[in-house]
Amino acid sequence: MAFGAFSLACSGCATAKTAEKTPAEYVNPFIGTSNFGATHPGAQYPHALTSVAPFNVAFEHKKLNEFEKDAAWNSRVYIHENKFLTGFTHVNLSGVGCPELGVINIMPTAGNLELDAQKYGSTYSDEQASPGYYRTTLDKYGIKAETTSTLRTGLSRYTFPAGKSNIIVNLGLGLTNETGGSLRVVSNNEIEGSRTVGTFCYNPQDVRPVYFVARFSKPAKTLGTFKKMPEFTGVEGEWMQHNNSIKPYPNYQRVMSGDNIGAYMRFDTQANEQVEVKVGISYVSIENARQNLNTEQPDFAFEHTRKDAQDAWNSLLSRIEVQGSEHNKTLLYTGLYHSLIHPSIIQDVNGEYPIMSQQHSAKVGNTHGKNRYSVYSLWDTSRNLHPLLSLVYPEIQSQMVGSALAMYQESGWLPKWELLSMETQTMVGDPATAMIADTYLRGVQTFDVELAYAAMKKSVETKHNNPIRPENADYLNLGYVPVDDEEPYDGSVSTSLEYYVADFALGQLAKQLGHNQAAKKYLAQAQGYKKLFDKSTGMLRPKQRNGEWLTPYDPELGRNFEPAPGYIEGNAWNYRFYVPFDMPGLIALNGGDSAFIEALNATFASNNFDMGNEPDITYPYLYNYVAGQEHNTAQHVTRLISKYFTNQPAGLPGNDDAGTMSAWLVFSLLGIYPVSPGDMNYATTSTAFDKVTIHLNPAYYAGKTLSISPLEKQQNTPSLDGNRLNNGFVTHQQLTQGADLRLRGQ
Amino acid sequence: MAFGAFSLACSGCATAKTAEKTPAEYVNPFIGTSNFGATHPGAQYPHALTSVAPFNVAFEHKKLNEFEKDAAWNSRVYIHENKFLTGFTHVNLSGVGCPELGVINIMPTAGNLELDAQKYGSTYSDEQASPGYYRTTLDKYGIKAETTSTLRTGLSRYTFPAGKSNIIVNLGLGLTNETGGSLRVVSNNEIEGSRTVGTFCYNPQDVRPVYFVARFSKPAKTLGTFKKMPEFTGVEGEWMQHNNSIKPYPNYQRVMSGDNIGAYMRFDTQANEQVEVKVGISYVSIENARQNLNTEQPDFAFEHTRKDAQDAWNSLLSRIEVQGSEHNKTLLYTGLYHSLIHPSIIQDVNGEYPIMSQQHSAKVGNTHGKNRYSVYSLWDTSRNLHPLLSLVYPEIQSQMVGSALAMYQESGWLPKWELLSMETQTMVGDPATAMIADTYLRGVQTFDVELAYAAMKKSVETKHNNPIRPENADYLNLGYVPVDDEEPYDGSVSTSLEYYVADFALGQLAKQLGHNQAAKKYLAQAQGYKKLFDKSTGMLRPKQRNGEWLTPYDPELGRNFEPAPGYIEGNAWNYRFYVPFDMPGLIALNGGDSAFIEALNATFASNNFDMGNEPDITYPYLYNYVAGQEHNTAQHVTRLISKYFTNQPAGLPGNDDAGTMSAWLVFSLLGIYPVSPGDMNYATTSTAFDKVTIHLNPAYYAGKTLSISPLEKQQNTPSLDGNRLNNGFVTHQQLTQGADLRLRGQ
Repeated sequence: MAFGAFSLACSGCATAKTAEKTPAEYVNPFIGTSNFGATHPGAQYPHALTSVAPFNVAFEHKKLNEFEKDAAWNSRVYIHENKFLTGFTHVNLSGVGCPELGVINIMPTAGNLELDAQKYGSTYSDEQASPGYYRTTLDKYGIKAETTSTLRTGLSRYTFPAGKSNIIVNLGLGLTNETGGSLRVVSNNEIEGSRTVGTFCYNPQDVRPVYFVARFSKPAKTLGTFKKMPEFTGVEGEWMQHNNSIKPYPNYQRVMSGDNIGAYMRFDTQANEQVEVKVGISYVSIENARQNLNTEQPDFAFEHTRKDAQDAWNSLLSRIEVQGSEHNKTLLYTGLYHSLIHPSIIQDVNGEYPIMSQQHSAKVGNTHGKNRYSVYSLWDTSRNLHPLLSLVYPEIQSQMVGSALAMYQESGWLPKWELLSMETQTMVGDPATAMIADTYLRGVQTFDVELAYAAMKKSVETKHNNPIRPENADYLNLGYVPVDDEEPYDGSVSTSLEYYVADFALGQLAKQLGHNQAAKKYLAQAQGYKKLFDKSTGMLRPKQRNGEWLTPYDPELGRNFEPAPGYIEGNAWNYRFYVPFDMPGLIALNGGDSAFIEALNATFASNNFDMGNEPDITYPYLYNYVAGQEHNTAQHVTRLISKYFTNQPAGLPGNDDAGTMSAWLVFSLLGIYPVSPGDMNYATTSTAFDKVTIHLNPAYYAGKTLSISPLEKQQNTPSLDGNRLNNGFVTHQQLTQGADLRLRGQ
Repeated sequence: MAFGAFSLACSGCATAKTAEKTPAEYVNPFIGTSNFGATHPGAQYPHALTSVAPFNVAFEHKKLNEFEKDAAWNSRVYIHENKFLTGFTHVNLSGVGCPELGVINIMPTAGNLELDAQKYGSTYSDEQASPGYYRTTLDKYGIKAETTSTLRTGLSRYTFPAGKSNIIVNLGLGLTNETGGSLRVVSNNEIEGSRTVGTFCYNPQDVRPVYFVARFSKPAKTLGTFKKMPEFTGVEGEWMQHNNSIKPYPNYQRVMSGDNIGAYMRFDTQANEQVEVKVGISYVSIENARQNLNTEQPDFAFEHTRKDAQDAWNSLLSRIEVQGSEHNKTLLYTGLYHSLIHPSIIQDVNGEYPIMSQQHSAKVGNTHGKNRYSVYSLWDTSRNLHPLLSLVYPEIQSQMVGSALAMYQESGWLPKWELLSMETQTMVGDPATAMIADTYLRGVQTFDVELAYAAMKKSVETKHNNPIRPENADYLNLGYVPVDDEEPYDGSVSTSLEYYVADFALGQLAKQLGHNQAAKKYLAQAQGYKKLFDKSTGMLRPKQRNGEWLTPYDPELGRNFEPAPGYIEGNAWNYRFYVPFDMPGLIALNGGDSAFIEALNATFASNNFDMGNEPDITYPYLYNYVAGQEHNTAQHVTRLISKYFTNQPAGLPGNDDAGTMSAWLVFSLLGIYPVSPGDMNYATTSTAFDKVTIHLNPAYYAGKTLSISPLEKQQNTPSLDGNRLNNGFVTHQQLTQGADLRLRGQ
C-alpha cells in the first residue's frame, strides 16, 4: 500500500472536523469529461493500476455519439456529450493526450444474447460518480450498473431485470490503437485472458499485453466466446455462416485469440437480482492478475470495497483542509483528486512488474515492498504536479523518484514519457532531471541521490546516442539546439528551453551536493537561453547552426497546432517567457520592468496566452517579478480560474495532462505557485479559502502544518508568521518549517 | 507407438527381398495433388498428428496461383498447378473435402525482412517428394527448403545463401476458415503459440486451438513479431504508421494475439549455411507440444529423422509385397501410403488428448499407452479403408475401433465424422456401426465388443435426440426416412440406405454374438430398402411420410452437386444399386439377372457412374453377382484404374476422401474388393501383379501369408488353394487362414 503510517495517523483529521461532508464528497469526477479534459468519471482508487470507467466513444452516430474515438484525435474513454455506452473498461488513463488503454471492456445486457457491441450498446441515464464509485442505468435494458475498484482490481455490480441476463467481456473494443487479445473461459464463473495495448502517441513500438482475470458472483447458466469473422468472398463467402460478422462459440472453453474476440456469461435472474463481476489486472501475467484479485477482493463485497476506496481518497485529500465556499471546495478537491491518479502503480501484490528496457524485454522485476510507479508524463507534470506532491505527499513523491531511478538502472536512462515501463519518447526535454533535482532541493531526500545525480549527469552530458536529449551534441556545442534539421515539426527552441530548465535544476542540486564545479557548468549552460533571445521581436527565436536567425519568422505561427519551426505545442508567444528560473535575466533582456510588463500584458491582450498548455501556464504569476505588479497576478489567476475551471464536465481548460492542469488549479486556489523546478520560490497570489491547513509529513518536514488564510481586511501586504512579505514570493523551506501564511483574499 | 512387435518382426521382409528399391521408394506423393485429390506432397509420417506440407493456395494470381483457396471450395494446402508458395504448414489433412487445418506456417526468406506473405511468397522449382520427405528450391531467394517429420513434430532444413536470412512463422495464413492465433518468442531460438482451427465443412461450432513450439538450430541475431493492423479511417488513419498493413514489433517477446500475427527470426548466414527449425504440435497445450518436441526430436538430426520416417513407411508398406510393373507398384504403394494417413493419432507423447464431447469441453483424457486416433471420415472410409486395415493392419484397426469406443464413452455417441475430438456431423448415416461390426466379423476382436454393441445399439435404437440418426423416429416407424422435411438438401434415400447398411452389419454382429432376436430385428430393418424401390423407374426413390413417391422425379438430378431431393452427393443412379449387403434381393426387385445387368450397363453407358464418389464405387464389382458376368467386373475395374488412377498429380479420380479412393485402388490392383460392411465376401477381379504376398498378423489371423497371383495362362477360373472358385467371391475367413489365391491377370 502506498501511504504508510503517517497517512493512518492523520486519517481521522478530516472526519473529525468536517463531520458533515468529507473531502471525497466534494469531488466531482465529471469535471474534465468534456472539452477534451480526458479525465473519466469511473471508479478510481488513488494511484491505482486499475479503474472501471464507462466507455462511450465507440461507433459513430450523429445523434448518440457525436465524438467517435477515431474520428478525431480523441484520447478519452468517456465523453460527456456522447450518449451510447458500450461497456466499462478496466484500465484507463486520466488526462492524457493520446488514445491509449480503455480495454478489458465488460457490458451487462438483458434478454436475447447480442454480441455485436454496435447492437448491444445502450443509452444511459441517472449517472452518479464519486471517488471510487460510478453508477448509471442502461436505458435499453433497465440495468443499474455500479462500479468500484481497488488498487489492482475492479468490481461491478449489475442489478438486472427478471429474465435472461448477460455479461459480455469484449476484448475487441478499446481506446488504444493496438489490437489483439486472447482469452479462455476457465469455469462458469471465471474468464482469464490478455489484451494488447500500446502504439502510444503513434509510436509503433510501445506495446505490451495487459492480463486479466474476471470472476462472477453467480455461476453462469450458459457461457461461450465470440469472434468477429473476416470477410470471405467468392465461394467461401457463400458457405460461411458468419461472414464479416460476429460468430458465437457456445460452451467454448479453450483459448480463443483474435483481433475482435470476447466471452459471455448468461444467467437467469429474478427482478432486481444483483450479479457482481470482479476483475484482477496485471501487466505481468494472468497468474498475477488472479493473485491480485484473490488478495484485494477475496469476497464479493461491493459496499465494503466502495468504502475502502472512499476512505483511501479521504485519507489523502484530507491532507489539505479548507474552509470556504462549497464551489471552491469542489474545485480544490476535484483538482487534488485528478492530481493523485498518475503516476500510478504498476507492480502486482507480489511485487512483480515489467521492467523498463530500451529493447522489448519481457523481463520481470520485483519491488520488494516498495511501489513501482508508471505513467510519467514528465514534460507536463515536472512543472507543478511533482512539486505539489513534494509539498503535501513527500512520501509518495519520494517513491516516484525511486521508480524513475529504477527505470534508469533497468534501461540505462531516466524516463521521459514513460508508460507501463515503455519509454514512449513523447514530447521533448529532460524533465526527469528537473523533477528529481527539484524533489531533492525541496527536502524530499529519501532516495539514493548519488545514483540520481549520476543518472541526471548522463542525460545532461552524453553527447551522442542520448535518447533523452537527442540533440545534445549541438546543444552542448552551440548552447542551443539549432533549427536546421527537422522541418516542419522542429522543436529547437522548445527543446532548448526545456534543457535550460533541467540544467538549472541540476546546477542547483550540484551546488547543494557540493559539486561546485559541476554546478557552475550546469548553471552556465542554463544561461544559454540568452543566445536565443531576439531583441528585434522580443521572442526566443529559432536559430540556425551558423548563428543566424530563422527567417522569415512569424511569432504567431503555431497557435492552432500547425507546424511552427522551433516550437512544440505552441507558438513563440507561448514560449517567450519560459525561462522560469531566471526571470530577472529575461526581464533585463526585454528591456527592463516596464517593457517586460508591457510584453506580458500584450500576451494576454492579444490572446496569445493558452491556459490549456504547459509552457505558458506560469505567465499569470510572472507579474510578481516586478515590484508593485503582484495585484495583476491575483487578478489574472482569479480570472483564469473563473473562466476555465468550473464545476462542469467542461471545467478544465483542455487536456488535464495527467493532472498538471489540476495541480495548477490546486496551487492557484491555495494562493501559491512553484515558479520553476529547482527554484524553491512559490509565487503568491490571493487565496480562495477562508482557511487552508496543509498537514505536513513530519518524516520530511520540520513543521506540522502549513496554514494559509486571508489577510485581515485592513491589511494589504502578505505576511509569513506575522512578518510582511516584501515581494511576491515565499520559499518552500519557509513554508515547510510550519508557517502561517496570510495572503490577499479573493 | 502404433505398430508394435509384429511390425518390427516383419520390418526386414521388404528390404531383404527388394534390396534394390524399397516400397517407400515407389510412392509418389504428388499423386492426388491435382484434380481436387486434396492430398499433399509434404513430409508425412504414418498416421501422424503432424506433417510438413508446402502451402501454395493463398493469394489469387492469375499467372501464378490459378486456384486460390477461397475462390472455390478448395480443401487443399497444395495444388500442383499453382506456383506461388507462401510457406510450409505443420498440420494438414489428406484427401478431405472441406478446407481445414493448413496452419502453423513457416517460411524461409533471404535479404530484407518482408513480413507480408503476399510479398515474401516465391515461385519454386526442383520439387522432390518421398514418404517422410519433401524438398524444393525457392526461386526468389535461392533457398533450398527440405522437410521431414515424426509422429508429432516437423523438421525443416533451409539452405540459405550468404547474407541476411529470415525464418517467418505466420499464424495468419491458413487453409482453415477459422482465424486467430497467439504466440510468444520465448528466446532467440524458440517460439511458442497456438492457432485456432475449425469451422469444418462450415459447421461453426467445430473449433479448437492447435498448440506449437518451434525451435531453431541457430540462435537468431534479431527477432520480433508482427501483426496486420486494421484499417483506420478519419484522423486516426492519418496518424497510424501501420494502417491496414503489416506492423513489425522488433524484439517483442511478450504474448501477441490477433487474427493475422506472426514472428520472425533473422540470421547472418554463410553461403549454403543450413538452419533447421523443428516444430512440436499438440492439441492439448503448449507444454505438451514442447514435450512432444523434446521427446521425438531431442537433436537436430535431419537425415536421421528422415530415415526414421522412411523406415516407418517401409515397415508398414512391406506388409504387402508385390512383383509386377514399376507403374503398378507405384500405384499400389502410393495408394497404400494414402490409406495409412487417416485416421491419425491425436494423443501427445504423455498420452494426453482432448476428449470428445457434445459440449465444447476443454477436458483432457489420457490413453495410457494406447493410440487415440482422430479424423474419422466414416461415411467414406467404412466402405473399404477400414476393411483394408482389418485385413493388412488388424492391430491398427483394432485401436481405431478402440478410439471410436472411447469417443462413445466420452460423448455418449460413436463418431460420425470426427475431427480432432469434435463431431462435425458431416455427411449422413451410421457408419461407425457399420465399421465396428465389420471389424469384429473379420476377426479383429481385441476390443470390448459388449461396449461396442451397446454403443451401436444406442445409435440404432434411440428414436429421439439421436445425433447419429436424427431421423430415427421416422426411420424406425416407417422403415425409411421420408423425403418430406428438408428441402432442397434432403438426403432421405441416401440416409436410409446408410442405415440399412449399418443395420445389416449390426445384425450380422448380433448373430455372431448370439443375440438372435436382435439379429433378426436388425436384419429385418435392413430389408426396409425394398420400400424405397420404385418399380417404374428402377430407382431407390424418395418417398413421403404418407407412403407416396416424391413427384415429379428426375433420376438424373444431382449429377453436378445441385440439390436433388433424396440424395446426398449424387443422383438416383449413383444410389440405385447401393444395397451392397443384399444384391440378390435388389436384383430380384430389378427383374432378375438380365434386367439387372442391363441396368448396370446402362449406368456406365449413360455416364451416370461416378468414380469419384463413394455410393457407387462398388458398381464395377456388381457384375460378379450374376454368374458368367465376372469378366465385366475385370474389364470395368481395369478400365477405371487406367482412366482415373495414374502416376500423375491428377492421378486420383477426385478427392481421396481420407484414403477411400486409394483403398479402392489398392484392393482393385490386388484383385479383391470387400463388397459391404458386415458381408465377409470379397468380390474378385483380375490382379495387376505377377505375385502378391500379404503378410498377415499372426496375433489376429491363422494364416501367415495371403498370396495372390495370376492364373496360369491356360486357366480361366479363379482358384483358392488349388480349388476352383465357382463364383466371383472369396471370403475374408478363407483368405486369412493363409491362402493361395489365383486370379485372372490383366
